[in-house]
Amino acid sequence: MPNHSEDAEKFLLAAKRSEIQALERLASSCELVTTVSDLVHQLQRERGISNIYLVSSGHRFAALRMEQIREGTCSADTFRQLLHDQYLQGDRCSSPRDMRLLNSIAYSLHGLDELEELRRHIDAFEVNALASTDAYCRLIAGLLSVVFEAADVADDPEVTRLLVALFNFMQAKEFAGQERAWGAIGFAGSRFDEKLHLRLEQLQDCQRRSLEVFLEFAGESEESSWQEIMHSEASRDLNRLRRVIAGLKNGEPISPEVSEVWYQLATTRIDAMHGVEDAMAARLLQVSRQRVADAQSELGHHRAQLQKMKSSDWGRVPALAVLFDPEVPGLYGRAEAAAVPTLHGQNLTHSLYDLIRSQVAHIQKVNEELEETRRALTERKLIERAKGVLMRNLRLSEDDAYRTMQQRAMEMNLRLADVAQKIIEIGNQRSAAKPGGGSARPRSTTGDGKPV
Amino acid sequence: MPNHSEDAEKFLLAAKRSEIQALERLASSCELVTTVSDLVHQLQRERGISNIYLVSSGHRFAALRMEQIREGTCSADTFRQLLHDQYLQGDRCSSPRDMRLLNSIAYSLHGLDELEELRRHIDAFEVNALASTDAYCRLIAGLLSVVFEAADVADDPEVTRLLVALFNFMQAKEFAGQERAWGAIGFAGSRFDEKLHLRLEQLQDCQRRSLEVFLEFAGESEESSWQEIMHSEASRDLNRLRRVIAGLKNGEPISPEVSEVWYQLATTRIDAMHGVEDAMAARLLQVSRQRVADAQSELGHHRAQLQKMKSSDWGRVPALAVLFDPEVPGLYGRAEAAAVPTLHGQNLTHSLYDLIRSQVAHIQKVNEELEETRRALTERKLIERAKGVLMRNLRLSEDDAYRTMQQRAMEMNLRLADVAQKIIEIGNQRSAAKPGGGSARPRSTTGDGKPV
Repeated sequence: MPNHSEDAEKFLLAAKRSEIQALERLASSCELVTTVSDLVHQLQRERGISNIYLVSSGHRFAALRMEQIREGTCSADTFRQLLHDQYLQGDRCSSPRDMRLLNSIAYSLHGLDELEELRRHIDAFEVNALASTDAYCRLIAGLLSVVFEAADVADDPEVTRLLVALFNFMQAKEFAGQERAWGAIGFAGSRFDEKLHLRLEQLQDCQRRSLEVFLEFAGESEESSWQEIMHSEASRDLNRLRRVIAGLKNGEPISPEVSEVWYQLATTRIDAMHGVEDAMAARLLQVSRQRVADAQSELGHHRAQLQKMKSSDWGRVPALAVLFDPEVPGLYGRAEAAAVPTLHGQNLTHSLYDLIRSQVAHIQKVNEELEETRRALTERKLIERAKGVLMRNLRLSEDDAYRTMQQRAMEMNLRLADVAQKIIEIGNQRSAAKPGGGSARPRSTTGDGKPV
Repeated sequence: MPNHSEDAEKFLLAAKRSEIQALERLASSCELVTTVSDLVHQLQRERGISNIYLVSSGHRFAALRMEQIREGTCSADTFRQLLHDQYLQGDRCSSPRDMRLLNSIAYSLHGLDELEELRRHIDAFEVNALASTDAYCRLIAGLLSVVFEAADVADDPEVTRLLVALFNFMQAKEFAGQERAWGAIGFAGSRFDEKLHLRLEQLQDCQRRSLEVFLEFAGESEESSWQEIMHSEASRDLNRLRRVIAGLKNGEPISPEVSEVWYQLATTRIDAMHGVEDAMAARLLQVSRQRVADAQSELGHHRAQLQKMKSSDWGRVPALAVLFDPEVPGLYGRAEAAAVPTLHGQNLTHSLYDLIRSQVAHIQKVNEELEETRRALTERKLIERAKGVLMRNLRLSEDDAYRTMQQRAMEMNLRLADVAQKIIEIGNQRSAAKPGGGSARPRSTTGDGKPV
């Protein structure tokens, strides 16, 4: 018989089971993210098509729009069904980090509820292309925040990296969609003024920055898929057209065919990006399910070992294995700890203590990897928050705020995250000094602070 | 009737419920920590008494030891019972972070299982004072790691700060107990050699460092309780005696009364520290239970609001409240977004959207506070890990490793955490280069990396 209490054994198994539960939850978040990725893609298409429909006063894309609305509705239904099955069935366990995911789902569902009404407004030409595009953008931003929250609460290092990569890729694709929309609006009005040129430039910058983060966290296969798109003929053509547009003067006449080409090239690129998303989502599902399977097989191994201990001599560990283990630090400075007689020459493997120690090593490994990923994430969030502070306090544009921080970091020989930390601290002091300042305006669900 | 789907409402409530569940779990962790704090105190007393018992060959403290063993057993039973009730009953939900807590409980229980055997060894004088003290230290370190894990997985900013303060205070008290033990061993052997002097000095350093972290995270009331102890007569007397001991030459004769005084003064201080611990634990329980009550009343408020919406006009929100909300960023650069006619002049409060938005603001506030606390924690952990790397790779003492990092930070004009990050990165590269290096030796449950 093993000389340990039942409870120590129970807690060893409970620890493993809690890992399995959490990994299962993570796997279902990954499934949700896959569905969101598809829904966002459908809504981006619907946005673009509705845009052209409105601009052409209903002459173009009427049938295509109906078809696309059917696709979108179908995708939204899948999303709702999955949510229902995964989160509203039975007594699901959760953590406060789940709170954020669940609340962002509530926000997205509320937005989806209004989609019908938006479509009716478009049918009746009660909104213009700009307002319609704006509304679709909010809906998509809400859905992206679901992916963001899923990434932010993930507790497995590899899954976290994949989710962060996917979120940033989706973010980049959304900026690409907004660039397409502004382009279409510019062509429709037959003029590209300075403001519009600046916006297009900034949206290209935004894509670049999101893609940088994507590349930092993505795996090799995602990276090479992206390289392929970058070097494709469609991308080269699009870049050429971007330069043509950038060269257009205010009010310069543009042939309508260029508008067509712009829409087509941008769409081809966006569709290719969706292909990368799909591949990433598939890998995410596979990795997250593999994690569950691994943890389950480890639990099986634990159980088998404990069984063996009960049925044989294997469990017989010297009585003071834990308290006299020279590998674990005890009294400070007692490095010369002599081996205790009772321990000498005994085989410590295949004991409960051995299982606990191996689990400690497993936890530590996972944790250190996770902390490194998290540190990168936390720093990115700090930088975004600081950018928000500068934008509000100094009335800077997003780009100028970013460049200001970069310059400061160079001058002061500091890391960008440290400069960001300082800016936030100063910002906090200021808003604490001004009564009602700073915290008065609620932050948005989707905007600043969600950049990772 | 409100114009939103049931599901959006359900997810709003599910989000709040998940916060409540998590806060309840946190409150029960706090209860566990309170029990651990008492058990550790009893074991520290038993360790000290057993030490004197062994050194005096059983002539002193025999009865006191029996009494203390009864106290300790009683405290351990309370701990076991609480664990049983809280974690092994029913189908408890958990997160992977729970895994760490549960595994450290398994380790501690396994150590407690061996306590009986350790006591028998002491009864029979089969261990010397040093080995006995060492064993008690391991047991206590295991229990401290339970408190560490509870602090590390807490998801509420104020509770996290209190737990971190408490953990570091307990750590400091444990170093004080080890200082008392080394002193007692020095007096028993009637000699304080250079090694022993160094150890006492280092243990005082360790106390200082743990107390610094305690002061960084503690509230005002804890801080002033600690100041009181620091300026008490007993502390002054102890400091005087510390200086006397530091002045003792190798082998210089010491009167036995001094040993008695040392033990008494150190014990008085440790007992006073336990008083602070108790007060902190009580506040921890109170704060964590208050959090649950607050969240429950917010859930009640949500429900009441939703009910009102159903029974009155309150829930009537303009159809495109979410998608046309000008406060939420939509299409990039559309800052001039005009108010949409349908929205104009409408009252948005008391709608589902309002509840979702207020919950978003709540989540964001909690999260930002938590992130700031966590950042401080992560940096402390980084510094400790880097210290471990230097100790292993350059064979430095703990103190020298710390001073080396401090010096580097000064020279390079970097923050200590950034230097630590660099050291870890270089360490990782090295162990990756050496096959089998670095990761071969399993890390301890209790030692480096657990300093926060």
